[in-house]
Amino acid sequence: MEQLIPNWLKKRASLTPDRTAIIFEGQHYTFKQIYDSSLRTAAQLAGVGVGKGSLAAVLLSNHKDSAIILYALQMIGARTIILNNRLTAKELTWQLEDSRAALLVTEQRFSRQNQEIGHSFKKPIFTKEELFSKPGTEPAIQEEYSLGDVTTIMYTSGTTGQPKGVMQTYGNHWWSATASALNLGLREEDRWLCAVPIFHISGYSILMRSLIYGMGIVLHSSFDEKKVLVDIEKYNTTIMSVVSTMLQKTVEELGQDKLPPFFRCFLLGGGPAPIAMLEKCRQKGIPVYQSFGMTETSSQFATLSPEYSLSKLGSAGKALFPNQIMIADEQGNELPCMAEGEILVKGPNVTQGYLHREQETQANIREGWLHTGDIGYIDSQGFLYVLDRRSDLIISGGENIYPAEIEGVLLSHPGIIDAGVVGMEDPTWGQVPAAFIVKREESSVTDKDLINLCLERLAKYKVPKSIAFMDELPRNGAKKLLRRKLREKAKADGE
Amino acid sequence: MEQLIPNWLKKRASLTPDRTAIIFEGQHYTFKQIYDSSLRTAAQLAGVGVGKGSLAAVLLSNHKDSAIILYALQMIGARTIILNNRLTAKELTWQLEDSRAALLVTEQRFSRQNQEIGHSFKKPIFTKEELFSKPGTEPAIQEEYSLGDVTTIMYTSGTTGQPKGVMQTYGNHWWSATASALNLGLREEDRWLCAVPIFHISGYSILMRSLIYGMGIVLHSSFDEKKVLVDIEKYNTTIMSVVSTMLQKTVEELGQDKLPPFFRCFLLGGGPAPIAMLEKCRQKGIPVYQSFGMTETSSQFATLSPEYSLSKLGSAGKALFPNQIMIADEQGNELPCMAEGEILVKGPNVTQGYLHREQETQANIREGWLHTGDIGYIDSQGFLYVLDRRSDLIISGGENIYPAEIEGVLLSHPGIIDAGVVGMEDPTWGQVPAAFIVKREESSVTDKDLINLCLERLAKYKVPKSIAFMDELPRNGAKKLLRRKLREKAKADGE
Repeated sequence: MEQLIPNWLKKRASLTPDRTAIIFEGQHYTFKQIYDSSLRTAAQLAGVGVGKGSLAAVLLSNHKDSAIILYALQMIGARTIILNNRLTAKELTWQLEDSRAALLVTEQRFSRQNQEIGHSFKKPIFTKEELFSKPGTEPAIQEEYSLGDVTTIMYTSGTTGQPKGVMQTYGNHWWSATASALNLGLREEDRWLCAVPIFHISGYSILMRSLIYGMGIVLHSSFDEKKVLVDIEKYNTTIMSVVSTMLQKTVEELGQDKLPPFFRCFLLGGGPAPIAMLEKCRQKGIPVYQSFGMTETSSQFATLSPEYSLSKLGSAGKALFPNQIMIADEQGNELPCMAEGEILVKGPNVTQGYLHREQETQANIREGWLHTGDIGYIDSQGFLYVLDRRSDLIISGGENIYPAEIEGVLLSHPGIIDAGVVGMEDPTWGQVPAAFIVKREESSVTDKDLINLCLERLAKYKVPKSIAFMDELPRNGAKKLLRRKLREKAKADGE
Repeated sequence: MEQLIPNWLKKRASLTPDRTAIIFEGQHYTFKQIYDSSLRTAAQLAGVGVGKGSLAAVLLSNHKDSAIILYALQMIGARTIILNNRLTAKELTWQLEDSRAALLVTEQRFSRQNQEIGHSFKKPIFTKEELFSKPGTEPAIQEEYSLGDVTTIMYTSGTTGQPKGVMQTYGNHWWSATASALNLGLREEDRWLCAVPIFHISGYSILMRSLIYGMGIVLHSSFDEKKVLVDIEKYNTTIMSVVSTMLQKTVEELGQDKLPPFFRCFLLGGGPAPIAMLEKCRQKGIPVYQSFGMTETSSQFATLSPEYSLSKLGSAGKALFPNQIMIADEQGNELPCMAEGEILVKGPNVTQGYLHREQETQANIREGWLHTGDIGYIDSQGFLYVLDRRSDLIISGGENIYPAEIEGVLLSHPGIIDAGVVGMEDPTWGQVPAAFIVKREESSVTDKDLINLCLERLAKYKVPKSIAFMDELPRNGAKKLLRRKLREKAKADGE
């Protein structure tokens, strides 16, 4: 049966109109104000042809205006393709074309990218500054949301290096928000600090929780540990989403001080956390919920409560209430506890699939179970341990990097025969990419040439931090690259 | 798309095995213990033939064992008909037959009713004492619940006086629990006192919240204001469900004392509350959430926050986040704010319909909107005011009483020509039924005869508290009984 629930922002503005929705750059905006602004923007979007089901792409920074654009698109029932603003124009153009976006809403600040995108993307491009100055027409506001409808699309790279658009429904976001509340609790005075990008599910999910919970967000344009500590105090922040790097910097900046008593917890995502930091947090009485999640699960899927953070070190915890995890062998059969295998996830916050990719969707989601490609096991008490994130995934400062994508760029150089990219430990970012290259004997290509090539084609965080030349790459009999050997080599080279 | 989520009690026992689930008569039971007991009972139920989809009726008191039986039935996927233990054997037998129950699980304490039921209900009847002594067989525990499946059925009388079985799905209970949490908040230390009957949705919904929130319940076998105050203090109770009578007695018993600071609120259901009591609660700083709900909405549907309890006196508040309310004219067209009309409700916690009553279901639920028969209006700020509960509904101590049912019993007496029943104000119960009778000239029937007839056929709370004889009842041209006139007469007679 189709499940309909009322328009979230409209309902929220009717229930708690005067409560603070967003605090941005010192200004407080109530739910009523955000609703009114979003309604105006919805009219402006309708004026440029966006309506129910439209594929509308956005390239936005962490800003109050971005929240309003995202809310407006949701209210008129568009399917919003939320682009990562750290990508190069080439990467963005590829996603715009792959998604068949009907238009792009961007910002003046991205003028360089906008211009370059405009060379090949032949659909309308509006900056928010242009959009906000338009008169608009009567928008068709969705009075109800059907939980099965797609509302957002976010691209993630796959193991093949080919990014795919993950479709997220209203229901996915709803269930993610309620599952999180059932785990972390929910208080009227809750306020969530968002210094993670709202183009990622980590940040976007905070926008959704704000509407569903009636909770204020402290929105930061970027992460700055000094500003974080000031605003936790100043705005009675109770929860903050972080990746390991952010938590480490925040705790260091805190020094001998303590966080205020109203602060409830850090929700830590985006890969494993160093033990020393967790130990430090425990000593300081800072509760950290470590979590496991991905774009395909619309944010956290499993979390480890602070009381287990040391006894179950390295675990991602247990699946949230509506969620299930299974460890399976290559044939998809369930494995017993302690056995290593592929991590399969199931739940109402799991994506229905990939945009315009019926075949990959069917290959990855079978009988409701999403095959994550990640390897792990479940212990006898039901705690999940993630051993390898899709074997070759590199997580750098919370961003996912797929080696295949970088390898593709490196191999496009005529002087290169073979290329292998792996993650290398890094004190600041957790991991950074390191490349291993086999060049043609006659080629005079240098590491600098390759770095420049990557800078041109890839987001900066994907550019290898080291390039080493080898005679040949370690491959097995089936010619499969032995990344483990490369990782060992990267580690040895780094020492 | 079918929505599947893991077995609630099993999941809860895996997430927080050692947390207190139920406190009953001084004993604490953890979720692990309740799960283990429920699993054993599930096996015993399977042993007597109960399985997925079985229509299993229960006649239970507020007791830890009852929670276990209800949980066990839910885990094996039975459709549980939860009978009101205040009804007479006649009324119970009617519901057992109407529901086509395959068996009845009851208690020794109801031996009188059980015996009488056994005369006409020819299916197996087990007391819990018998059931718990059975060896049991391997039960088919539902690993996942499909939110669209019916899990409970509760009978409510209708305007016609014919009780109907309201079907409640897993999804109805789920959405009710999460909607309530989004409204009242949710804290790890929350503990809910249940002194309302668990055979009503008001009590049963607390059992569901316990599983979904991981929250402890303080379960009372019956309401006793002294015990309530002791246990609020003793067990750090934070929330309690009450009807007006219970709240009044509790506040009186409290006298000059205050409730402990950890107590968060009373959730008040089952009809309107007297202003003097609300005023007293405000003075004492006792937060009261007034709510509007019914069996058909699986508990609260709208609530009024304490900050509005006086400025919006008499209002039932606003529809909870996933819920919608519409005021409609007789043709079902939406009316503007301030206009009086029928209250229609829509949301994922609204019943799919009445058991074995396709026609009445279709008549009452149209395009997702349940026509409640209640009359009210919505003010310009969106607050709901209920003017008349189904025009003739009497609410006595939180129990719904339909005049037609009592009138039917009265009219069955050969000396009676006409009968009309209305609610009369009562300081203790809010309302009590008052009957007006037209008897045959030749009949010597007395009020005492009629009271005895009612006591034999109706639950005690339905028996009229006064009987007045008249020459004829006030009826309009279409012979429709003018209950308003009778209500005025009852009021005048009482003064």
